[in-house]
Amino acid sequence: MTPRKSDATIITIGDELLIGQTIDTNSAWMAQELNKIGVWVHRRIAVGDVWKDIWQSLEEESNLSDIILITGGLGPTADDITKPLLCQFFGGRLVVDQEALANVKNIFEVHLKRPLLERNLKQAEVPDVCTVIQNKRGTAPGMWFEKKGKIFISMPGVPHEMKGMMTSSVLPKLQEIFQLPPIVHRTLVTAGIGESFLAERIKDFESTLPANIKLAYLPNYGMVKLRLSTRGNQAKMVAELEAEFDMLKQLVADVMVVDEDKNMTQVIGDILLKEKKTLSTAESCTGGYIAHLLTSLPGSSQYYLGGAVAYANAVKQSLTGVRAETLEKYGAVSRETVTEMAEGVLRETGSDYALATSGIMGPDGGTPEKPVGTVWVGIAGKEETATHQFQFRFDRQRNIELTANYALNAMRRYILGA
Amino acid sequence: MTPRKSDATIITIGDELLIGQTIDTNSAWMAQELNKIGVWVHRRIAVGDVWKDIWQSLEEESNLSDIILITGGLGPTADDITKPLLCQFFGGRLVVDQEALANVKNIFEVHLKRPLLERNLKQAEVPDVCTVIQNKRGTAPGMWFEKKGKIFISMPGVPHEMKGMMTSSVLPKLQEIFQLPPIVHRTLVTAGIGESFLAERIKDFESTLPANIKLAYLPNYGMVKLRLSTRGNQAKMVAELEAEFDMLKQLVADVMVVDEDKNMTQVIGDILLKEKKTLSTAESCTGGYIAHLLTSLPGSSQYYLGGAVAYANAVKQSLTGVRAETLEKYGAVSRETVTEMAEGVLRETGSDYALATSGIMGPDGGTPEKPVGTVWVGIAGKEETATHQFQFRFDRQRNIELTANYALNAMRRYILGA
Repeated sequence: MTPRKSDATIITIGDELLIGQTIDTNSAWMAQELNKIGVWVHRRIAVGDVWKDIWQSLEEESNLSDIILITGGLGPTADDITKPLLCQFFGGRLVVDQEALANVKNIFEVHLKRPLLERNLKQAEVPDVCTVIQNKRGTAPGMWFEKKGKIFISMPGVPHEMKGMMTSSVLPKLQEIFQLPPIVHRTLVTAGIGESFLAERIKDFESTLPANIKLAYLPNYGMVKLRLSTRGNQAKMVAELEAEFDMLKQLVADVMVVDEDKNMTQVIGDILLKEKKTLSTAESCTGGYIAHLLTSLPGSSQYYLGGAVAYANAVKQSLTGVRAETLEKYGAVSRETVTEMAEGVLRETGSDYALATSGIMGPDGGTPEKPVGTVWVGIAGKEETATHQFQFRFDRQRNIELTANYALNAMRRYILGA
Repeated sequence: MTPRKSDATIITIGDELLIGQTIDTNSAWMAQELNKIGVWVHRRIAVGDVWKDIWQSLEEESNLSDIILITGGLGPTADDITKPLLCQFFGGRLVVDQEALANVKNIFEVHLKRPLLERNLKQAEVPDVCTVIQNKRGTAPGMWFEKKGKIFISMPGVPHEMKGMMTSSVLPKLQEIFQLPPIVHRTLVTAGIGESFLAERIKDFESTLPANIKLAYLPNYGMVKLRLSTRGNQAKMVAELEAEFDMLKQLVADVMVVDEDKNMTQVIGDILLKEKKTLSTAESCTGGYIAHLLTSLPGSSQYYLGGAVAYANAVKQSLTGVRAETLEKYGAVSRETVTEMAEGVLRETGSDYALATSGIMGPDGGTPEKPVGTVWVGIAGKEETATHQFQFRFDRQRNIELTANYALNAMRRYILGA
């Protein structure tokens, strides 16, 4: 069978996306998963709950793409118009799907233990011209249409419902139909070097890359990911990609965090698991964000013990044992305070390593000596304590995120003795 | 002057948006700010760093919209092609902008204290057919073009740089040019009631709304926001909107959290500030996420003291004073444990209120008696301790977010005695 073309557009539907009340996280996840099976997303469109705008985007995108993935607008309320629109667009009429109906009833009777409303029953209706994609995580079924050789897939906008459908139905079916070479990526992560310095360092490498291998820079909060990609997984192509990737690794060896597409917390988790060591935290300025990043990973309880959110000075004293004299003499944002915080939480939790942060995240609280963005990080181990000072110059949210990533990278280097 | 039309499209450029390595948070912020001055974003498009795709989207969107806002693709590396493309699209040639050049030099010499590279100097080049938007937060200048009565604005994709340009230059200039009625929103937040039950309750209200007032449902992690909007701020229209909003508030009074567009942590912060009370936390399953939400708000140090991330059982004992017998007899996920966690952290920090969480977030760790999604929440005050049990059925990330919102809502009701 000749492989069919497999360019995709993602259309997300909902006024909430256009007035800025919702950030679209679905598209990124969908694009990642589609990439893995070799489907290239070349456009993403967001439109409101407006009949003519949705209709127009369906017409336009079907001229540009082979696969049109649609999320949103399938809820039980009056502003959700996607289903009747799709029904008309594909020339069908709404009929009750028995399996979807049984699913809606089951969710209400067994899980929610609430009476079923008329509007919920309507969720089991689908156009008679689609193949139904059952929703195991919610009430709105998905719909698969084909028209003039193009595929249209409509799914709910609720992330975990969409993900369930993609994983169990949509991706396997697309894989079966298209049989295309997957896109092969090799990614490495650097920290502590800016995008333009990195580009300067590898410009000769970049200019001599074979045409079928593409390099991308992906900067993110003090880290830059470098990604090489090629389309196709024949042994020769993969070997060529690997050879280029090895060369790239050598060029950035001193600033490389890991030679995989992992985030900093995964890298640290891997190291701690391998070394059978534990970690605790004492956070002032990051206010629990580092703990949140660490505990977002499944299995983190194997190496992360917890610690203190030592936000107020009194809590720095009571939970991490910082001395009142230290706070008075040097201030909360100081080498001395983060040293005592790290050593204190290490002692209290019995962990092998401890990470402490204290800084001024803004917008207020800066002084001429310690302006907004001043951060101290302390790292304690059984033998010694290291400290670092950073200076950021951004807004509160970004300062918190940058502090977390810089502190975790300092932690990583400390553990590795690098 | 007759108001010009003011429909906008946001075009975001970058392969990272199409392979899913970056979540687009810029568009939501831009849409919110544009809405406030009466500009309606009716489409958002994301395209890759591909010449023909960018070119095509510029042509298409200029047929559909009056204002085309473009972000991304202005970096110093070879994959950033937006600037030469815009130069060609608008028929200009690249020239050095002296103010942008001085800015680039200043950033490198004064802030970064690093030598300036040739590729950074190139960032000061702009097409001679644009008005330059100076970038006070980075090296890449923005560009404002006009063609056939349409406005095109190109900005960097780095969020804080884009925000700086929007706030200081783009929004004021658009406001001056278009002079359109702003879109007026009134939003309230509900918690603890599903979207379809809410819709059922207010369906008569919804069906009798005047044509110029629009109702939207915005569900998000156990909360549903209801928003009424009208386009125009004449006294009569605003009064009509207020009257409808008052009616809506009465219909949902028992499940309403607040009658403004605020998130749960803002609401709790407001209550604590007003009552001059303080809060501490002891988090097991939420692993610092609640602390992070609270400390993300500027000024939270006025009412939030900190607390413990009591992830490991030993830390529940050492930092929050849970007794070994309690953990052994009832387990970490139990009414008894969250009671002792909340009371312990209240005692240790001296706060007026304390919030504790313990649960099984998944994917592993569930048992037949306590399946994944089982959560206990404890809330301590000076007089009494309340506990709640919740059962979620989602993935780890969503369970953490739902637990945080449910726990904070329980906290809010406890403080208010509701």
